Amino acid sequence: MSSQPAHPTLLIPGPIEFDDAVLQSMSHYSESHVGPAFVATFGETLTQLRQLFQSTDASAQPYIISGSGTLGWDLVAANLVEAGESALVLSTGYFGDAFADCLTTYGADVTKLDGPVGGRPQLPEIEKALSQKKYKILTVTHVDTSTGVLSELKDLTATVKRVSPETLVIVDGVCSVACEEIAFDEWGLDGVVTASQKAIGCPAGLSISFFSGRAMQAFEKRKTPPASYFASMKNWTPIMKNYEAKKPSYFATPSPQLVHALNTALKQILAKPLSERFARHAEVSDKVKKAVQDLGLEVVATKPEDQAHAMTAIYLPENVKIPDILPKLAGKGVVFAGGIHKAIATKYIRFGHMGVSVTDPKRKDIDHALEALKSGLSECGYQKA
Amino acid sequence: MSSQPAHPTLLIPGPIEFDDAVLQSMSHYSESHVGPAFVATFGETLTQLRQLFQSTDASAQPYIISGSGTLGWDLVAANLVEAGESALVLSTGYFGDAFADCLTTYGADVTKLDGPVGGRPQLPEIEKALSQKKYKILTVTHVDTSTGVLSELKDLTATVKRVSPETLVIVDGVCSVACEEIAFDEWGLDGVVTASQKAIGCPAGLSISFFSGRAMQAFEKRKTPPASYFASMKNWTPIMKNYEAKKPSYFATPSPQLVHALNTALKQILAKPLSERFARHAEVSDKVKKAVQDLGLEVVATKPEDQAHAMTAIYLPENVKIPDILPKLAGKGVVFAGGIHKAIATKYIRFGHMGVSVTDPKRKDIDHALEALKSGLSECGYQKA
Repeated sequence: MSSQPAHPTLLIPGPIEFDDAVLQSMSHYSESHVGPAFVATFGETLTQLRQLFQSTDASAQPYIISGSGTLGWDLVAANLVEAGESALVLSTGYFGDAFADCLTTYGADVTKLDGPVGGRPQLPEIEKALSQKKYKILTVTHVDTSTGVLSELKDLTATVKRVSPETLVIVDGVCSVACEEIAFDEWGLDGVVTASQKAIGCPAGLSISFFSGRAMQAFEKRKTPPASYFASMKNWTPIMKNYEAKKPSYFATPSPQLVHALNTALKQILAKPLSERFARHAEVSDKVKKAVQDLGLEVVATKPEDQAHAMTAIYLPENVKIPDILPKLAGKGVVFAGGIHKAIATKYIRFGHMGVSVTDPKRKDIDHALEALKSGLSECGYQKA
Repeated sequence: MSSQPAHPTLLIPGPIEFDDAVLQSMSHYSESHVGPAFVATFGETLTQLRQLFQSTDASAQPYIISGSGTLGWDLVAANLVEAGESALVLSTGYFGDAFADCLTTYGADVTKLDGPVGGRPQLPEIEKALSQKKYKILTVTHVDTSTGVLSELKDLTATVKRVSPETLVIVDGVCSVACEEIAFDEWGLDGVVTASQKAIGCPAGLSISFFSGRAMQAFEKRKTPPASYFASMKNWTPIMKNYEAKKPSYFATPSPQLVHALNTALKQILAKPLSERFARHAEVSDKVKKAVQDLGLEVVATKPEDQAHAMTAIYLPENVKIPDILPKLAGKGVVFAGGIHKAIATKYIRFGHMGVSVTDPKRKDIDHALEALKSGLSECGYQKA
């Protein structure tokens, strides 16, 4: 079966379990980062991102840069906002708050709209905020990995375009790209920043992002230079354009092995219609949410329409503690994550259901995890009321 | 023999050829970045860096962050210098110039001392500069990958300590760490930033750095917050301390696979005395330089004491062009790099001799490369005068 040694199934909301072929690509022999073979692979991978984002706009720009997903925030904050310019940050948890911190670091004037724990800021209050002040950008966490709250990008973007058409709409898609629908051009998004190790299914180490022609123009119009060196669009844009045109180019050394793995992962994703992939993630997510409900437990994301399909954050029964249940699950070969939202951190666990664990029919990861959760809770003394 | 498929031998000054076990570590199955197994590996790897830098100072701080080597410059520029503070940059080529650009991006007041092409700024002029103005930091490129010029760190650091003891001495060790001697504590260095893909022998994708207790104190005394988010010591220091203490911790997701590969590479390096490793690189470098001289060619680094042991930049004969010789070499299974120093870019090639190509007695990479260079030049019509 798998060429990987037996190991606990990793079902945290990223990194996820990886396909054998993707992991094998990580061991690719060494190549020059400016040699024709790797330049062709990197160029192809950038073009694959256009397909992943369902974009045909030639003025949109993909980036693949060595770094954590977090680096994508720096890319936005250091290039698309100048010191003193305003940013409206919609927060649905830990990651929205942190994106705001990053923007503040680079001098943005940040207004943050917080959803209630397990919910999201609502369109009327967003509309009100946008009509009271001019914002250069609005940022939204598509799926906040800390809560599993899903933001509604399509209606949100339509609202921004109606109320404040000049505002750039920037999406943190770290926990959504490749499992939640993102119609970049159709919805009129201006940027999505993401990472390799979640639904894309490539090991961690790559910051992946995609910006509209409009965002690139906004960057070009800056009055001050970019506020970062490594995360500078000025430094990276010509490099990405050259690689995609299959021309060697150098600013900082990319990771050939990670790019090969990303190329393999994207080839697998793009071999089938994306709509099928999104539907399959929704189907498995529904199954998980129903099983959680059947166990008498509550999902952190309160309303069904706010629930992500990438993961489920689950409130523990009152008498079950994280240091008891997580090791029980690990003993059954299943790795879940603890909570990280400040307000409720000790009260819930997180179950990631993305990538091969969901799409590979040979894997029974999700069923095993649900069984382990049920028996683990029982062993912790929990019985459904 | 090797588990890698047949491929051209990569002898550019990084990425280098990788050991089989290191590449296999890149395919490690997925693990939680905060799970006990990976936390132990990451913690051990940070401790290995202390050994690599020959440091026993508990107040010194290692960092391993997803990113290119270039990210190390941001780490220095955004944390150890505040806007308006002065930096003295010693440049021996493309990379010294670029480090200056990075420092300028974050607001440093940069004075650059340039060596002549193929040489380095001399101690008397450095001493003069240090006595004329107070510098918060001095930066030096240990081996400039564009020229193969080696800086003399020990005497330089002694000079700084004598003339301007408060100035932090920061080394770009991207092309020197793990092949040139660096006695961090003994010489009194304050920081070394490097990357994974050169003499350390791990695929690209990790920014690796090491700072003295004194540098950490200078960071603590900042009046303004760090000027970067992803490259913020404030964000990363507690994480690195926790990992090294084998405690889970989160700021941004590290790359478990790259960290496993780094751990494997460092285990191999530290299994033997470092002095033997440095001597072996010097021995092979001497052999390469002599062969180049025997071919009637000149090395870009003019004086023997300025010549790096990691690589050799070689002036081409006048009638031999880069677009002719590099493909000839590739046809013989050897990949060298072209020039990147602005002033002489079309006139020279670069030959990297680091890591397993130098230390593994089973490999004949260097001998083959020297034979290929000789026959390749001959096929390009070159005959020694």
